[in-house]
Amino acid sequence: MKAAIVMGSDSDFPIMKPAVDLLKEFGVEVEVTVASAHRTPDRVRHFVRQARQSGADVFIAAAGMAAHLAGVIASYTSAPVIGVPISSEPFRGLDALLSTVQMPSGVPVATMAVNGAKNAALFAIEIFAISDSSVKRKLLDYRSKMVDEIENKDRALKEKI
Amino acid sequence: MKAAIVMGSDSDFPIMKPAVDLLKEFGVEVEVTVASAHRTPDRVRHFVRQARQSGADVFIAAAGMAAHLAGVIASYTSAPVIGVPISSEPFRGLDALLSTVQMPSGVPVATMAVNGAKNAALFAIEIFAISDSSVKRKLLDYRSKMVDEIENKDRALKEKI
Amino acid sequence: MKAAIVMGSDSDFPIMKPAVDLLKEFGVEVEVTVASAHRTPDRVRHFVRQARQSGADVFIAAAGMAAHLAGVIASYTSAPVIGVPISSEPFRGLDALLSTVQMPSGVPVATMAVNGAKNAALFAIEIFAISDSSVKRKLLDYRSKMVDEIENKDRALKEKI
Amino acid sequence: MKAAIVMGSDSDFPIMKPAVDLLKEFGVEVEVTVASAHRTPDRVRHFVRQARQSGADVFIAAAGMAAHLAGVIASYTSAPVIGVPISSEPFRGLDALLSTVQMPSGVPVATMAVNGAKNAALFAIEIFAISDSSVKRKLLDYRSKMVDEIENKDRALKEKI
Amino acid sequence: MKAAIVMGSDSDFPIMKPAVDLLKEFGVEVEVTVASAHRTPDRVRHFVRQARQSGADVFIAAAGMAAHLAGVIASYTSAPVIGVPISSEPFRGLDALLSTVQMPSGVPVATMAVNGAKNAALFAIEIFAISDSSVKRKLLDYRSKMVDEIENKDRALKEKI
Amino acid sequence: MKAAIVMGSDSDFPIMKPAVDLLKEFGVEVEVTVASAHRTPDRVRHFVRQARQSGADVFIAAAGMAAHLAGVIASYTSAPVIGVPISSEPFRGLDALLSTVQMPSGVPVATMAVNGAKNAALFAIEIFAISDSSVKRKLLDYRSKMVDEIENKDRALKEKI
Amino acid sequence: MKAAIVMGSDSDFPIMKPAVDLLKEFGVEVEVTVASAHRTPDRVRHFVRQARQSGADVFIAAAGMAAHLAGVIASYTSAPVIGVPISSEPFRGLDALLSTVQMPSGVPVATMAVNGAKNAALFAIEIFAISDSSVKRKLLDYRSKMVDEIENKDRALKEKI
Amino acid sequence: MKAAIVMGSDSDFPIMKPAVDLLKEFGVEVEVTVASAHRTPDRVRHFVRQARQSGADVFIAAAGMAAHLAGVIASYTSAPVIGVPISSEPFRGLDALLSTVQMPSGVPVATMAVNGAKNAALFAIEIFAISDSSVKRKLLDYRSKMVDEIENKDRALKEKI
Repeated sequence: MKAAIVMGSDSDFPIMKPAVDLLKEFGVEVEVTVASAHRTPDRVRHFVRQARQSGADVFIAAAGMAAHLAGVIASYTSAPVIGVPISSEPFRGLDALLSTVQMPSGVPVATMAVNGAKNAALFAIEIFAISDSSVKRKLLDYRSKMVDEIENKDRALKEKI
Repeated sequence: MKAAIVMGSDSDFPIMKPAVDLLKEFGVEVEVTVASAHRTPDRVRHFVRQARQSGADVFIAAAGMAAHLAGVIASYTSAPVIGVPISSEPFRGLDALLSTVQMPSGVPVATMAVNGAKNAALFAIEIFAISDSSVKRKLLDYRSKMVDEIENKDRALKEKI
Repeated sequence: MKAAIVMGSDSDFPIMKPAVDLLKEFGVEVEVTVASAHRTPDRVRHFVRQARQSGADVFIAAAGMAAHLAGVIASYTSAPVIGVPISSEPFRGLDALLSTVQMPSGVPVATMAVNGAKNAALFAIEIFAISDSSVKRKLLDYRSKMVDEIENKDRALKEKI
Repeated sequence: MKAAIVMGSDSDFPIMKPAVDLLKEFGVEVEVTVASAHRTPDRVRHFVRQARQSGADVFIAAAGMAAHLAGVIASYTSAPVIGVPISSEPFRGLDALLSTVQMPSGVPVATMAVNGAKNAALFAIEIFAISDSSVKRKLLDYRSKMVDEIENKDRALKEKI
Repeated sequence: MKAAIVMGSDSDFPIMKPAVDLLKEFGVEVEVTVASAHRTPDRVRHFVRQARQSGADVFIAAAGMAAHLAGVIASYTSAPVIGVPISSEPFRGLDALLSTVQMPSGVPVATMAVNGAKNAALFAIEIFAISDSSVKRKLLDYRSKMVDEIENKDRALKEKI
Repeated sequence: MKAAIVMGSDSDFPIMKPAVDLLKEFGVEVEVTVASAHRTPDRVRHFVRQARQSGADVFIAAAGMAAHLAGVIASYTSAPVIGVPISSEPFRGLDALLSTVQMPSGVPVATMAVNGAKNAALFAIEIFAISDSSVKRKLLDYRSKMVDEIENKDRALKEKI
Repeated sequence: MKAAIVMGSDSDFPIMKPAVDLLKEFGVEVEVTVASAHRTPDRVRHFVRQARQSGADVFIAAAGMAAHLAGVIASYTSAPVIGVPISSEPFRGLDALLSTVQMPSGVPVATMAVNGAKNAALFAIEIFAISDSSVKRKLLDYRSKMVDEIENKDRALKEKI
Repeated sequence: MKAAIVMGSDSDFPIMKPAVDLLKEFGVEVEVTVASAHRTPDRVRHFVRQARQSGADVFIAAAGMAAHLAGVIASYTSAPVIGVPISSEPFRGLDALLSTVQMPSGVPVATMAVNGAKNAALFAIEIFAISDSSVKRKLLDYRSKMVDEIENKDRALKEKI
């Protein structure tokens, strides 16, 4: 199980770090790279090929503005590509969202919420869980912890009121 | 390999039919149901449970307006959920897109373009192709046919000019 | 007279507190809970049922992003549901507004302005005032105080100019 | 039980007729009037007062463009006001939605989806159902018929596929 | 020459002060009041009548969110009404702009840019300048000073580079 | 009393004709011209000067897309300029509205609703009515006819229901 | 002088044909191809290289939805790239406009209006006119014909009124 | 080789400075001026003529809000005009973008991303590089440095993780 994370800029790393951490927490090997679809098109192409050869089954691409990165990766591979639109001034991610999600028929990109790095990792994990029962078990654990957390917050709030 | 397709309304079927056809073409078993997150919440919950038990590994949910269907399904299962926002008057799918993609951390929905039914099917197929080499081969075929088609269209256009 | 307030996250409480306070000020019993439509769907379903049984006549639901909470509550009860879209980055509540207001025919959600917690409480009070003359009297008082306040501000401003 | 429906223009009647019909079906008396907040402000003021005196407990206001009608009615009464933004060229109801829903603190308008006439009626009915058990019974019937309808559509679709 | 300025809230005064100052600078008498179309509808109606009787020829109305103030004033008078949409969170004046400008046929509101208080005053001055040659002269002066200012800034910038 | 109407394209005439007719009906002399701010900048400049010399006191400018016409006219004259954003594909007048209304401080354009030609004429008439009591009388007549019309429509609707 | 026109789909040709015709009219050699950034990434890369070698100095790229084509071409060449966002349902080119224009620093795309094919050609011609005085002369002719046309339309309109 | 940069306001200079610097770095002569399309229309007209006579081959225009500057310059010259929409409150450049890019057929403006000053300079340089091989060489250098930079950032990030 391996996922490749590509960021259009190293400034996106603080937003994407939770994705890296979560994948590792679930035992998924992660390869991270910085590659811009516009500034370094050849680098993107080579990375996709190399990552496929070294076993990456899922790609996560994060980019802002005219966010072509996920689409460009999807044009080079038939592996699932998950897109994370990154918010930036002045359009706060509306440009990145539309550039990522409005893919033409034939080349899908699974788009997450703007800045939704954690969900990109979780969705990759959901894919791996289909054929890996240990990942699946951890995933169910993760979600039931999420339920506990909300119940705790609810209790805390009720005490406060 | 089985995918479950849920539509908020039977009027969405003409848009979703290409997804059903494509999945079948790739040898993926498909279960289709009409269930509204708002009008029939219990029906959605039961369907998700039953579909999981009968082997569905991936869900595709199509809904318009305040499109909660994909999110509600994702709240009941940790299987991958692919959301297809459906365009409708007057906001032409902007409401459905934002309602589908802007999921909170913890419960991802892999969102496709508005009315992107075919890509939802293709993305499900990409997921299945990870562990099924026959699906993977068909997928590569499918994509290279796509390239041929464009080359043919290019030739036809050049003759026309 | 009882109103149930559900928040998708405890971080919404500072925005919703004025609603809690106003309802209490008008003598309306309030039950507050934190429950996420996506992370804790069963919790939402149980809460709606339990709140109905313990006498809640009106629900107020506050959520951000793909704000499904009000719609999900409305799917479980025919009691009036008032939705408060919560503003959050990056789309500042446009996603929450459209996700809350664009409900399909059959399952209405009475939507307030983004972050309009106080108005949600006031609208619940307007509903209670139909059959409770003491609430109605307080409501007329409240509104005439609002008029006085503006007249005072007008006087203060005129002195300042 | 009486509801007053105000339309900014008689051209809105085809959109609002389902609301009139549904209210009558539930045994709610309906008073319908055409009154423009901008062209006939006095008419709106007098109508609100007269409708209150003749027993209207709930107002439904439908208007397009800079849709001030619901807000203006809400400024004259503390009875619940339900707003229906009407879609019109060129902004297809975005102007009407924002003009209706973004009310300032103190004067709520319960906003429905753009052109959501039927839901406005249903929401009024939900309000009446709080204190009228016969309306409540009809409402539960109405909703369970809605469930049946979707199940029938689902069966029909499955036969077709 | 008299202009009446109405603000929906005294918190709009810092934005509207430049309009008051500019009008006075041009020798236009100014009457300022705080009156909310929603919270104090009678106050608005009385103010419009009284201001007309005391000689106001032009109204300037400033309001945010579902900004009905200019439209409501225009419904009560056939004097020119200039609307200033006020920016507020979360929609930054898009709601106020559409609520102010999208008036139905028959009741115009002359809409300025969001927060465009100074231009509202200038436009009122342009109206007064039609029949008052002294105002006209001052207006031409004002505009040629504007040209000088830009030329000065251009020189300053060129020295800096 | 004279108004100058400038259209960016002769294809805007069907939309602007009601403005021409209404002004004439009120006894306002009208000069109509086609002049594009972008294609014929000198023509616009000369027209503004000539129209001013021949007595035009108010300008009405109608343009679509990047609608600079009203702003350009306002840059050449201190007479009141009324802008009518014209709807066109694909943005249906949002581009024209923002290009017309968002004028910088110092050069106001009184913006009407998208395609709001009639209101542009009415607003010009409101300006003329300040100093012309016969125009003022006609204007009050016009508005009271508007009220009658709505009352008639209301009666007609009530008979129909 | 040679321009290369790339379309994401042959269905864009009716919109782009005026660009082809105009370039030819100005004596610019045109090479037209259909190549999708997403479906045929290698084809795009090869075409850019080949077109450069065969003398193309300017690229015009037309694409809809998540319109990456212009950006991808710009990533492969430092020749000027002109982007034409193509309108398509449901977002009518807003997605294509933002995907084309919001390029990151370092890789510019000169973006035209949505569907602005003719202007793309004209802008290429303006570039060629810098160093080719015959093109420049034709361009000045073209623009003065544009002025004549508007004057004719103005005359025609004035006769009609 | 000479480029003329026009800014609507001297407050735009911090955003435009990188464009000035980059052009100079590439050996392009730069003339900078402050001139507002609305406040100083004659100044803009004279500047365009004078800049053309003194050898400017390309114009870069930066303006915010109803950003007419680029369009007005393009109306006076057939030299390539590059537009930079400047972000400002409250619409963060959406108004400036639409006002700059949505030019009518016949008068193109090559629009850059909002605040995309550097890309405007780069695009001008790409134009000059067509006929100047020394500029072209520097441009290829610039772009390969861009690639190096990203590779360095990638290495740095990988060490950090």
